[in-house]
Amino acid sequence: MPGDPIREVRVTPVAFRDAPLLNAVGVHEPFALRAVVEVLTEDGVLGLGETYGDAVHLDRLHRAAAAIRGMDVWQVHRIARRIAALPAGGPGGDGTAGMVNAATADRVLSPFEVACLDIQGRTTGRPVTDLLGGAVRDRVEFSAYLFYKWAGHGDTEDEWGAALDPDGIVAQARRLVDEYGFGALKLKGGVFPPEEEIAAVHALRAAFPDRPLRIDPNAAWSVPTSVRVGRELAGVLEYLEDPTAGIDGMARVAREVPMPLATNMCVVAFDHLRPAVAAGAVGIVLSDHHFWGGLRRSAGLAATCETFGLGLSMHSNSHLGISLAAMTHLAAATPNLTYACDTHWPWKDPADDVVEPGVLGFTDGAVTVPTGPGLGVELDRDALARLHEQYLTCGYTTRDDTGYYRRRYPGFDPTAPRW
Amino acid sequence: MPGDPIREVRVTPVAFRDAPLLNAVGVHEPFALRAVVEVLTEDGVLGLGETYGDAVHLDRLHRAAAAIRGMDVWQVHRIARRIAALPAGGPGGDGTAGMVNAATADRVLSPFEVACLDIQGRTTGRPVTDLLGGAVRDRVEFSAYLFYKWAGHGDTEDEWGAALDPDGIVAQARRLVDEYGFGALKLKGGVFPPEEEIAAVHALRAAFPDRPLRIDPNAAWSVPTSVRVGRELAGVLEYLEDPTAGIDGMARVAREVPMPLATNMCVVAFDHLRPAVAAGAVGIVLSDHHFWGGLRRSAGLAATCETFGLGLSMHSNSHLGISLAAMTHLAAATPNLTYACDTHWPWKDPADDVVEPGVLGFTDGAVTVPTGPGLGVELDRDALARLHEQYLTCGYTTRDDTGYYRRRYPGFDPTAPRW
Ligand SMILES: [Mg+2]
Ligand SMILES: [Mg+2]
Repeated sequence: MPGDPIREVRVTPVAFRDAPLLNAVGVHEPFALRAVVEVLTEDGVLGLGETYGDAVHLDRLHRAAAAIRGMDVWQVHRIARRIAALPAGGPGGDGTAGMVNAATADRVLSPFEVACLDIQGRTTGRPVTDLLGGAVRDRVEFSAYLFYKWAGHGDTEDEWGAALDPDGIVAQARRLVDEYGFGALKLKGGVFPPEEEIAAVHALRAAFPDRPLRIDPNAAWSVPTSVRVGRELAGVLEYLEDPTAGIDGMARVAREVPMPLATNMCVVAFDHLRPAVAAGAVGIVLSDHHFWGGLRRSAGLAATCETFGLGLSMHSNSHLGISLAAMTHLAAATPNLTYACDTHWPWKDPADDVVEPGVLGFTDGAVTVPTGPGLGVELDRDALARLHEQYLTCGYTTRDDTGYYRRRYPGFDPTAPRW
Repeated sequence: MPGDPIREVRVTPVAFRDAPLLNAVGVHEPFALRAVVEVLTEDGVLGLGETYGDAVHLDRLHRAAAAIRGMDVWQVHRIARRIAALPAGGPGGDGTAGMVNAATADRVLSPFEVACLDIQGRTTGRPVTDLLGGAVRDRVEFSAYLFYKWAGHGDTEDEWGAALDPDGIVAQARRLVDEYGFGALKLKGGVFPPEEEIAAVHALRAAFPDRPLRIDPNAAWSVPTSVRVGRELAGVLEYLEDPTAGIDGMARVAREVPMPLATNMCVVAFDHLRPAVAAGAVGIVLSDHHFWGGLRRSAGLAATCETFGLGLSMHSNSHLGISLAAMTHLAAATPNLTYACDTHWPWKDPADDVVEPGVLGFTDGAVTVPTGPGLGVELDRDALARLHEQYLTCGYTTRDDTGYYRRRYPGFDPTAPRW
């Protein structure tokens, strides 16, 4: 069969406004960066992908884009090999002989793989779910992602206002539940001393007696602190996410607390699964197609998790509509993804997106799986141009939550464990 | 999107002539049984699958066929769930509450999943490889499957004649290599005392100095015997396949022999991987889409094996052209399937098949991956009718290598370990 050769690949960095959300290493800057990948075939079919927009990743994306031109969008394994053979060309991602390492290769591959599946779906008239074995659910549930936050960037208060104590978190949760219908509630922790965050979780439990609760301090705690928090929140948490750093530390916590541990920090690449399973470090893996090599490789992760008795949830960074569509298709076609997925979606201004509105929306805490061909979303070129212009003018080319936090608190030291 | 609903599913048992090939539990009967699955969509597109043809499995296939009528061929996860909810209805395959267990469900699912992928490929104009991420190789290498064998069934000698000693095995290998071009050579062992089989392997090494060699006694050996054989064949074998029974026994052998152990006996379902990995029982899994739930779930197995550092080869039972096509597509689209695959193909009379000739053939030990839509093979209805008639008249409805062997040697006791 003749394939669908790639005529052109465009990688466009974009920036969208973000709220001052606090975490263990600082606070979100005024703009979040993403890269929009467009793959165009010789027949003129366009596929979309979305990924991180920081400068080092962007450089790799541009080189990958050039490397896969002319290849067939159906030959994703071969595209993956081509990308894995790229020189690392930047800090932090190089494996042997100056090539990108496997984890970096998966991160670079991801948006191109998603774009290829989008094209496959568009040319065959099938939604991406169908290319992954079909949807097992028509709606994908997401969790409310609660953040401690400043009132605003600089001196202007944003529409959410500050959330710096249990009352603020409960009020934020109330609004997210009212507006989106979320079931599960996840608190980004690691910001205040554990006692304050435990109090916030208890306040959430009191206000929402039936909703699954999670807390994720991004490994800000020592092993003993993690164990203490885990025991204090026995019977309250659905799962405890990354209380402490590393497979070893997580394993030591896992043995001492009653709830499963989840991670998107100590297991973020295929290489990490074997030692994590051997150590009994985690009960739940938060998958994320952006770093697990796209949707098909994430299906492989799902098979691995099912085989080894690991639960599966989904991680999110700040993202736009292309990623929300991809996450929704993947989750719908993954039978063992049984936890509500994370998303930063509510923290993004609805006016800031690169897809045409109308397809993706939350009802009762879930997104209805798009049923149109491919990802089911269309690129809004004016919006893309606007968000790219915003990228060019915003002054950010990399993410630095710590540096931004230090502008207000110069002495801030995020070295873990903080508690 | 509207789907492609299944209008009709046909399951046709067939029998084809087989040679008197010896193994640890007896000898192949004069006929091998298979079931041909035809899935027909409302639009009149036909998809093909092939699986075991014994009576218990046939019964489950018929019930599964009835259960999935009306379902969409793109909704394979949902088809799998429907099949997993079938009552077991026979010996050996029941899990909790009288439903089929997971391993049996995967065996029943397999031919229907393959047929659905065949249809997906035909309706989209893509070969099945493309639905699995694309072929990473254009030719799939197979191994020469060497068997000790009787001269013929009953009194008539077949065209291969007897092979009951090292000379006979080397002569058989020579012919298979000459006719098919096979690289790797695999000896089905467990038939004669280990010393005789070791001698056969050494004779193969002397006759074919550069070819990878394997021996598979189907767990006929004790742990000490397996260790002894493994050590005697150090540096000679590519891998040692199922020398002894069980994950525990294999783990004990694995620690004492220099070559990797392979298996299609102690790891034959997803449930077995976790304990096998924990015990370090095997280095190589012989995948087989017939029992691993079809092609996509076999891709999940491949991902799991890669993640846990296990090699991947491929197992074969006696099979026809639909299965050879499916095996070839799967192997071509599985990057980490790096060993030559097993096949019984040469032991089948070329006249006995259900697919039209011309697409599948061996050159230099490899089958060129079909590039037509779907599996790329077409059903020969006359041949199907003939092989079904052969099934009806041959008198076999189940496989019994031991009973057939006892007609000649009534005292034969296959209880393992035999040595
Ligand atoms: Mg996290
Ligand atoms: Mg075997």
